Amino acid sequence: MKFATLKDGTLDGCLVLVSRDGHRAVRAGAVAPSLIDALQRWDEVHLPLCDLFESLNVGSAPGAFDFDPTACAAPLLRGPQWLDASAFLNHGRLMEQAFNTPPIPLFDSVPVMYQGASDDFLGPSDDVPLPSEADGIDFEGEFGVVTGPVPMGASPEAALACVRLVVQLNDWSLRALGPHEMKTGFGFLQAKPSTAFAPVAITPDELGSAWCDGRVQMRLQVQWNGERFGEPHGGEMSFHFGQLIAHAARTRRLSAGTIVGSGTVSNVSRAAGSACIAERRVIEKIDVGEIRTGFMKFGDRVRMQACFDDGQAGPFGVIDQRVVAAPGAR
Amino acid sequence: MKFATLKDGTLDGCLVLVSRDGHRAVRAGAVAPSLIDALQRWDEVHLPLCDLFESLNVGSAPGAFDFDPTACAAPLLRGPQWLDASAFLNHGRLMEQAFNTPPIPLFDSVPVMYQGASDDFLGPSDDVPLPSEADGIDFEGEFGVVTGPVPMGASPEAALACVRLVVQLNDWSLRALGPHEMKTGFGFLQAKPSTAFAPVAITPDELGSAWCDGRVQMRLQVQWNGERFGEPHGGEMSFHFGQLIAHAARTRRLSAGTIVGSGTVSNVSRAAGSACIAERRVIEKIDVGEIRTGFMKFGDRVRMQACFDDGQAGPFGVIDQRVVAAPGAR
Repeated sequence: MKFATLKDGTLDGCLVLVSRDGHRAVRAGAVAPSLIDALQRWDEVHLPLCDLFESLNVGSAPGAFDFDPTACAAPLLRGPQWLDASAFLNHGRLMEQAFNTPPIPLFDSVPVMYQGASDDFLGPSDDVPLPSEADGIDFEGEFGVVTGPVPMGASPEAALACVRLVVQLNDWSLRALGPHEMKTGFGFLQAKPSTAFAPVAITPDELGSAWCDGRVQMRLQVQWNGERFGEPHGGEMSFHFGQLIAHAARTRRLSAGTIVGSGTVSNVSRAAGSACIAERRVIEKIDVGEIRTGFMKFGDRVRMQACFDDGQAGPFGVIDQRVVAAPGAR
Repeated sequence: MKFATLKDGTLDGCLVLVSRDGHRAVRAGAVAPSLIDALQRWDEVHLPLCDLFESLNVGSAPGAFDFDPTACAAPLLRGPQWLDASAFLNHGRLMEQAFNTPPIPLFDSVPVMYQGASDDFLGPSDDVPLPSEADGIDFEGEFGVVTGPVPMGASPEAALACVRLVVQLNDWSLRALGPHEMKTGFGFLQAKPSTAFAPVAITPDELGSAWCDGRVQMRLQVQWNGERFGEPHGGEMSFHFGQLIAHAARTRRLSAGTIVGSGTVSNVSRAAGSACIAERRVIEKIDVGEIRTGFMKFGDRVRMQACFDDGQAGPFGVIDQRVVAAPGAR
């Protein structure tokens, strides 16, 4: 199934199902008014939603309409927890050099993960208001999963079975603020403003063989102001999503609707480019001896779209956002 | 006004107003079914709630009943964000020694704060299920505030004016896991299981002169298994709550219902005792050369109650919890 959320002025928006071809949609309110409601009552609503999805796909769903992904909010406008890992070790090792921070202990064997704000997610076409260009405005292209309820102490295998949906996201980051927050040991807070999501959240089966080994086996194409920036592949994730969820659930239970992110998609091959500016900058420093790329300016745009290995566009739709000055910005 | 939330099987519980003397309560459902709903519609519900509160205090509220604080959930069973500072510098400096972590940069001038899980708060009498005694089970007695909506970039003064409620809480902590998570730079995650709250959340005016300088000017009495552990005073907080909220809102807006914690209440005077075990342990090491106190065991209880400077019990009620082995605990 493919889900999206239309903006309707409510805190959770209006849930729609999106057809497999991405062209049509139908309101799911008779079954579940919002995606968070559907996730909280998944066992009860799963079959009725499947039925509605199939009727949409064959053109028989009453009230179906043309789907406009640019009218969408994030699939979840808010969620119970947003936990973002750094599961591409290539990215993490480069960022240690970029930030000049000490090596993360046990980085190869224990996932690292920060808790982000989950009350104010951005939609795929929303402007991104930020207070200052001097903060080092950067994007981070990622994949993520949305869980059902996960009991405390779940194994990685049991945790992987709790995945309900797969999402594509941009973990907006402020690089001038990150290193200080890492050095405090308390983790990212000001360095992580609201996170943005591609319009369509999908059940893993919609990916076919591209959902494999608990990873999203797709390339994430990133463009900055219309120019190619990179298209790293999700298959190089060093921990699978079940391991990440189990890490999060080691001492707490996770509520239905918890989102777990992969961290910036990153490949060892330089040819793949990058899914964040900070990584390109440190690669420039390593490879050519100087940083040549600045961070984003107000008015800049970033576009992200996942594609299958055969080049076909993926089911998540497009994140295409513009950075703007927040009220009172410097 | 004084608010509490009764458990009723729903995700947000049932909002009640509690009388000023703490003996009586009345359901507020006709005005706002839950505390989060009241906070989201504060301008609309504030006066009707005030009217209901005054009728409760004079004994004329229809349907009023005896208030049983032990039947309460946390005032907010879940909230949009839970941001916990470390605003008592005395505690922070001792913890650097306890954890053997590097000095926090700019600790005197820039607040530190981690983002905690806000989807699964514990009530004041709830058992605390945890996976292992080997994790170093500890309590942290704190004060906190609940905000209305806070715009990005709010000044400390404007942020302080966004305080809607004051709360008392126990930030449960796992000390064997904290130092590693600090060293990753990503902050606390496994080290911070569900946080617990005293039953009654109050508007600041209920504290009279004990709400002063953006701080809670009260002692937090802590008992472990019935024995006195400490009663540090909230007035020694090095940053006021407006500064903490403004720090959190530097690059994001905060949704109504965001909770900001003080960090462990801690005083320079050794006579005050401590509000967490880790602090007592490092004081033992400093003062007598060896650690004599262990962390909590399954079956242990901790009790926390705030009192005014004249010794009178405060309006938040009592946190009194027992630590128990989670299913599958080691």
